[in-house]
Amino acid sequence: MDFMRVAIDEAKKAFAEGEVPVGAVITREGRLLAAAHNMRLSRKTATAHAEIIAIDRACAILEDWRLDGCDIYITVEPCFMCAGAILSARIKRVYFGALEPKFGALVSNADIFSIPTLNHHPEVERGFYELEIAQLMREFFQARRH
Amino acid sequence: MDFMRVAIDEAKKAFAEGEVPVGAVITREGRLLAAAHNMRLSRKTATAHAEIIAIDRACAILEDWRLDGCDIYITVEPCFMCAGAILSARIKRVYFGALEPKFGALVSNADIFSIPTLNHHPEVERGFYELEIAQLMREFFQARRH
Repeated sequence: MDFMRVAIDEAKKAFAEGEVPVGAVITREGRLLAAAHNMRLSRKTATAHAEIIAIDRACAILEDWRLDGCDIYITVEPCFMCAGAILSARIKRVYFGALEPKFGALVSNADIFSIPTLNHHPEVERGFYELEIAQLMREFFQARRH
Repeated sequence: MDFMRVAIDEAKKAFAEGEVPVGAVITREGRLLAAAHNMRLSRKTATAHAEIIAIDRACAILEDWRLDGCDIYITVEPCFMCAGAILSARIKRVYFGALEPKFGALVSNADIFSIPTLNHHPEVERGFYELEIAQLMREFFQARRH
């Protein structure tokens, strides 16, 4: 199963709802555990990013605040809050598509997973469907400008 | 009103519930808007830190994902997730008590609010009731070791 495509489908749901189009999927041992999209406007809270909602759902399913051995697929580079939540949940691997130049915490504005004093260092792979995802983000922000 | 004392009372509630004793209070124009304590075990999710719950409550009250002009009082230095949530919510000032050497994102392991490429830079003041709060944390972890 191509989990980044599931994350892109989630991002498109956000787009249709007028939310910044970001999607996230959490997997465990190759199986889909939780999927979510950005709901910051509909939930009216700063914390309702796709990754936070996906982490909450995965924790609810596993009945554990630790997501040891889980991976997360995100359409764009996570912000500081979401990268921090990935640390907090002990997620093992992060796959993301496009860079997030303004808010990204793994490449664009910092590389927080590499800070040597931290006790957990998730692996990161990026660039999946990068052009398609960047185009989706661009379309969203262009549409809002008109 | 001494908001850090309210945050300490919240931390003590967490302690009594067997949760890592951290409390947070959000204020606006000198008035208490929301208070919360760490609920990671009881809510069974990695995101249920005091700051995240307080931000969600404050956003719910204001019906807005932006907490412009709001301040947050936290018993200990916020982790990356919570410092990122403070950025995401556009909180203006952060007051905290004790340092958090393992997870802190503002002094101990990084200083993310000073990253020049970010669009928001909350002010930080620290050291409020530092010894009392550090003692509360120590007592909690010592009790768990026995």
